[in-house]
Amino acid sequence: MRAEYINPFIESTVDVFRTMLGCDVERTGLSVHDKFCPEYDITGIIGLSGKAHGDVVISFEEKVALSATHALIGMKYNEINDDVIDTVGELTNMIAGNAKTQLESLAMSLALPTVIVGKNHSIRFPSKVKPLSLPFQSKWGRFNIEVGLVESPEGAHCVMA
Amino acid sequence: MRAEYINPFIESTVDVFRTMLGCDVERTGLSVHDKFCPEYDITGIIGLSGKAHGDVVISFEEKVALSATHALIGMKYNEINDDVIDTVGELTNMIAGNAKTQLESLAMSLALPTVIVGKNHSIRFPSKVKPLSLPFQSKWGRFNIEVGLVESPEGAHCVMA
Repeated sequence: MRAEYINPFIESTVDVFRTMLGCDVERTGLSVHDKFCPEYDITGIIGLSGKAHGDVVISFEEKVALSATHALIGMKYNEINDDVIDTVGELTNMIAGNAKTQLESLAMSLALPTVIVGKNHSIRFPSKVKPLSLPFQSKWGRFNIEVGLVESPEGAHCVMA
Repeated sequence: MRAEYINPFIESTVDVFRTMLGCDVERTGLSVHDKFCPEYDITGIIGLSGKAHGDVVISFEEKVALSATHALIGMKYNEINDDVIDTVGELTNMIAGNAKTQLESLAMSLALPTVIVGKNHSIRFPSKVKPLSLPFQSKWGRFNIEVGLVESPEGAHCVMA
């Protein structure tokens, strides 16, 4: 995928964590993710489609998801439950939504987030897609964002109605 | 989600299995999926967006995914590998793509499929969405399709360019 597509996702992640959760986060790397790599404990996925189409996958350590839920809705939990799942889905939606607004020329719209729960799962893109992987560190722990976008065939894209 | 949206996904599943894999499948039920339900061994997810937006989640027993790979690309494997993952992604893409063509009035476009591998994962939609769950039986084993779609806010949808 084209490197210029990735910056809006980095900026959006930093902004959403700062403004919605009051938490500063730091990106600690950038790599092409093409290995069979296990994710953290809870993962949000959301599809995007328009002049480009693809997915954003955000995987959180459990302690990050629990702290983010506390910050977002004021509820303190010791384990993953419906509120934590909804928080992860909502963060995934907000981060992808802010980034797509910055990528206005791609005229993308969002699908719904889904949330995967369970250790030892791994998430794969189609082999023709090489998503970029962005590890982040926060005071709550680690999370990782993967973004895989490919340009859509001419005429198959959407414009805002 | 509206019940009339579900028939195109049922028809598309039967058609894709018959025409692409030479395998007849039978739907064995229909229910609202709102529980914390573990999936089978390998699961494809794809987002759709347009006048409605949502996701299709197709979870396969390993033996179904292996047999489908053999039927689709002629390769016989005993365990999940890159080709099996790509086959599951491609089947997810084809089933959702055929169904969206039938749901022309919703003017939806597809994101990319992602594929989840690992036992004991579970996949959740946002709690406001009640996806419909469609269990299927084939000569190769079982698989399950969940479809969750919600109508998009006025003005946020796409039209074909």
